[in-house]
Amino acid sequence: MTTVGHSLGGACGKIDGVPPTTFTAVTALTPMPDAPGRFAAAIHPEWTIGGKPNGGYLLAMLGRAAAEVGTHPHPIAASAHYLRSPEPGPVEVCVEVLRTGRTASQLRTQLRQADELCIEALVTTSELRPDGEPYWDGLPRPVPVPFDECVRLPPVTPLGIEVAILRHAEVRLAPSSLGFANGRPSGSGELHGWLSLPESEHLDPMFLLYAVDAFPPATFEVEPTGWVPTLELTAYVRALPAPGPVQVLHKAFLIDAQRVDEACWVWDCRGRLVAHGTQLAGIRLG
Amino acid sequence: MTTVGHSLGGACGKIDGVPPTTFTAVTALTPMPDAPGRFAAAIHPEWTIGGKPNGGYLLAMLGRAAAEVGTHPHPIAASAHYLRSPEPGPVEVCVEVLRTGRTASQLRTQLRQADELCIEALVTTSELRPDGEPYWDGLPRPVPVPFDECVRLPPVTPLGIEVAILRHAEVRLAPSSLGFANGRPSGSGELHGWLSLPESEHLDPMFLLYAVDAFPPATFEVEPTGWVPTLELTAYVRALPAPGPVQVLHKAFLIDAQRVDEACWVWDCRGRLVAHGTQLAGIRLG
Repeated sequence: MTTVGHSLGGACGKIDGVPPTTFTAVTALTPMPDAPGRFAAAIHPEWTIGGKPNGGYLLAMLGRAAAEVGTHPHPIAASAHYLRSPEPGPVEVCVEVLRTGRTASQLRTQLRQADELCIEALVTTSELRPDGEPYWDGLPRPVPVPFDECVRLPPVTPLGIEVAILRHAEVRLAPSSLGFANGRPSGSGELHGWLSLPESEHLDPMFLLYAVDAFPPATFEVEPTGWVPTLELTAYVRALPAPGPVQVLHKAFLIDAQRVDEACWVWDCRGRLVAHGTQLAGIRLG
Repeated sequence: MTTVGHSLGGACGKIDGVPPTTFTAVTALTPMPDAPGRFAAAIHPEWTIGGKPNGGYLLAMLGRAAAEVGTHPHPIAASAHYLRSPEPGPVEVCVEVLRTGRTASQLRTQLRQADELCIEALVTTSELRPDGEPYWDGLPRPVPVPFDECVRLPPVTPLGIEVAILRHAEVRLAPSSLGFANGRPSGSGELHGWLSLPESEHLDPMFLLYAVDAFPPATFEVEPTGWVPTLELTAYVRALPAPGPVQVLHKAFLIDAQRVDEACWVWDCRGRLVAHGTQLAGIRLG
């Protein structure tokens, strides 16, 4: 059992000996010559959990491709079904425009590796306005623990799985969400905390597609398990995030028949809800 | 302003003068000869809101097609992006198998009308077991008001929009969720109640794809508006429903930039969570 009673890095996200990989760099796309809507990309070997790439990270690549190809700059709804987990290394990202509208467009995106389809995702894009204010909310609230009072997670889970991505993205949990790390899950199925990118990188809506899947399984605060592979992930991007870390509430709802559904809410440092995610994942419980 | 202080029908869902249309009938698919994975279907003119078909009803058609074509019988995750609203009348449903696995498969489905793509949905199918019990839950709870003490919604909204579908599907709301109907929304953004099909029809997982979108906008308990068109709808089917009405909690989270996200939880009459939905919709507020 690994404890997380000490922080492994500062707010800038640097960890000894590991050169930082920016989110922009690890989601970069290179258009293929003479192949409209097709891009070469590479899954970074360090944006992984137990050697498998994070599902939200891959969805961010697909969202970036959709925004690149479509006429609207921001993914506002993205729904991915995960067919097989690709390996770190080269992949191909393909986009097909389904409809181009005045205020929104829909695109179909795919991530392929060695000619096998790994993920297909539908993406609706639009343009999020930098101004504007929420009209009403009935949102849950994250526990109000400041960034610096949260504890940075180390790159290994309580059951010993290497989580290399945590050397780059900085996940910090509120002390009340750390029962699992000390062998005493609270039973709440909730994780509260903060997420920050290396190098204080500018946050864009693609980052938010990753952010809704960046936290450990919220089921760790029920019972720690091995890998919890995402089967389906839906992300709604609701506003452009202000610079700085984002606050996250990740919550499990139901473990049944070896599947769990989780919701994730992401607020920027102004306290504005910027993204909401929901996912269905496999789990070795129930 | 229409009040809903009286029930318009009994548990069997019949309303004077309207012949009942079963859910099975209005989601029926006819395989096209010599065209594997293609079906003819018809959108029923009465399964509509203001003349537009209900989004969950259409997703149920797509889920039925996916189950028909794939090797697994039950949709467990379905994610639909709505491109344009089809009219009642003939449509074509197309399915393409993306991957067939041992325990789950993924399929791409489309609903087309007059050669235009109206909806594309990704569907993961599997086989839900009739036995088995939930392992853990951190679910919200619906208010415990019995079916008969809830009030059946009439086929018209407070702002006068005809909701013909309510002549067939029976939506009953708890008295505490009826503020909007009397011009006094509670501000909670929550609707609690029950849903029942005509003719006491057997409930299958396709019904649950509709059930997560069957209630009025939960925003009615913030401020009644006109049509709230679904942009994206994701449904997770978690268990096979027991016969009888299902209990529903429909909740709005955030109205921002003329969009709202809503979650919906559906329990069968055993009190077991059988489906969870989340959607992003357009709204003329914010």
